[in-house]
Amino acid sequence: MIVTDDRVAPLYLAPLERQLADAGYATTSVVVPGGESSKSLAMFEKLLTAALEAGLDRKSAIVALGGGVVGDLAGFAAAAYMRGIKFVQMPTTILAHDSSVGGKVAVNHPLAKNVIGAFHQPELVLYDLDTLKTLPPREVRAGLAEVIKEGLIWDAEFVSWCEEHIRELLSLDRDALGYALYKGCGIKAEVVSRDERENDLRAILNLGHTIGHALEAVAGYGELLHGEAIAIGMVGAARLGVRLGAPQEVYEVTKRLLVAAGLPTAIPSHYDTDAIMKAMMHDKKFTEGTMLFVVPTAVGKVELNPNVSAAMVREIVDELKREADRL
Amino acid sequence: MIVTDDRVAPLYLAPLERQLADAGYATTSVVVPGGESSKSLAMFEKLLTAALEAGLDRKSAIVALGGGVVGDLAGFAAAAYMRGIKFVQMPTTILAHDSSVGGKVAVNHPLAKNVIGAFHQPELVLYDLDTLKTLPPREVRAGLAEVIKEGLIWDAEFVSWCEEHIRELLSLDRDALGYALYKGCGIKAEVVSRDERENDLRAILNLGHTIGHALEAVAGYGELLHGEAIAIGMVGAARLGVRLGAPQEVYEVTKRLLVAAGLPTAIPSHYDTDAIMKAMMHDKKFTEGTMLFVVPTAVGKVELNPNVSAAMVREIVDELKREADRL
Repeated sequence: MIVTDDRVAPLYLAPLERQLADAGYATTSVVVPGGESSKSLAMFEKLLTAALEAGLDRKSAIVALGGGVVGDLAGFAAAAYMRGIKFVQMPTTILAHDSSVGGKVAVNHPLAKNVIGAFHQPELVLYDLDTLKTLPPREVRAGLAEVIKEGLIWDAEFVSWCEEHIRELLSLDRDALGYALYKGCGIKAEVVSRDERENDLRAILNLGHTIGHALEAVAGYGELLHGEAIAIGMVGAARLGVRLGAPQEVYEVTKRLLVAAGLPTAIPSHYDTDAIMKAMMHDKKFTEGTMLFVVPTAVGKVELNPNVSAAMVREIVDELKREADRL
Repeated sequence: MIVTDDRVAPLYLAPLERQLADAGYATTSVVVPGGESSKSLAMFEKLLTAALEAGLDRKSAIVALGGGVVGDLAGFAAAAYMRGIKFVQMPTTILAHDSSVGGKVAVNHPLAKNVIGAFHQPELVLYDLDTLKTLPPREVRAGLAEVIKEGLIWDAEFVSWCEEHIRELLSLDRDALGYALYKGCGIKAEVVSRDERENDLRAILNLGHTIGHALEAVAGYGELLHGEAIAIGMVGAARLGVRLGAPQEVYEVTKRLLVAAGLPTAIPSHYDTDAIMKAMMHDKKFTEGTMLFVVPTAVGKVELNPNVSAAMVREIVDELKREADRL
């Protein structure tokens, strides 16, 4: 059963159905509306109904053709259908290189995002780079933010490589993009395989996400893409790292690379600091004035610091509002 | 968060809440309507809403206080909430000794039972034998069917023990019942630990269930309890075993023990054979005229036979309709 959305379906559904049919597979397809609102329990139920009506059994597979929303939704359906059937990710965005690896699947509850879900590893992640050609340039840049993040948490060499090849990446050069996505997925898979259920290590994948999520919550709908928000968050985390003793270079390299990628690195000055802090307080990683924060200690290296004070984070937020969006 | 139903709540919810409070736990409780209809996606969503409103986090636990329905429903909520939190089973029926061990949790879809679920092992199964005293005698007998089944698939000595102690078991003698439930849970846990995801071995736990499920589907609501249906199914499986070469003793012991337990061993003669066969065809274990069947080969021993013909099963069904419900 192929699950896709109404943006991706007109572009890639028919060719995929044709190729699977040529290979001898019987398929059925479900097209959901594009966007986060499809990550609902109601849509999850629709997928299960479609699966039952099409007669999927324990040996069937669900294929997610699309971005992160489709992957999360279809993945949770695959996790729950008959207590778990096979699942294949075919990401059509750069951002989904991150979500397609690692097995975190979920839908949203009206009261909170991603709280209904499972850990369900895909059998296969199949990246057809040609599908990325239809991405708007802004989505390309935002997607690269997560690729860059993988370097910043794990691999200084890959950070240098990204800086050297940023033009090729932005122009979707096949070789460069193929290497970067393979590398990014590899780092993600390495971290996840050491800590699938996020007891500790896996949390480093959240570099830039604490501030980033707060910015997304405070921004109007569509104002900041996820990748843009975490780009700003990563600059904040770098600033925090330097404050806590990391070499100044950590901030400089982070900033330079994100600016080169055409990503924002400053909090728009009209955002309210109190609102941002309040949104962060709602984040589950925050308790009583101190915060669990992913903090860079060197380029390509981070630590989980459970004792970052809320006061210091507020200072960083204020600094980010005065930060220039270029070098 | 304690999950229970409106039959169990008046009996045991307050004492449990009190004891947990005394032990220093903050609790919240959800009472669902008793019966299979609570195993729905709508009720699942209600539990998740209650969990979010009560502020459950990743370190919280969900406690299922009740029978199999409550365990399946609460267990799936625990499996999906924040991608899996801790889960404790407190079964209050004998039947739930079976479902509380092994981690199979699920809700129903209008089109099929138990098709939305997960494998989520409980941290703890806590059996308070005192709660069984409030069970109606018919439920006691039906519950013992699954206990007897554990013996028939795995342990001839335990089968003999059950026969010797059947009167104590039926009168809920504390020592006898405690031993039998511990033993039954132990066999179940042993089988499950060797094959959690039902690739092969775990399927032996379905002894009597293929015919049993079909009878449940054909019977009017409430006409046959699950344990009663599988008791009849186990006699059918024993007949099948003898046909396929097992010693006659397999049938005799099975029949004698189930009759001693006051369980039905014959298909009520007004049930339509065609309807029973049709219900079995719908069962996912059936393909093209042959059937995967759990077949006894000796007392306390079964095998998975993938080549049982539908024609032979039909003969067995007809025999069961002529079977006497006593020795």
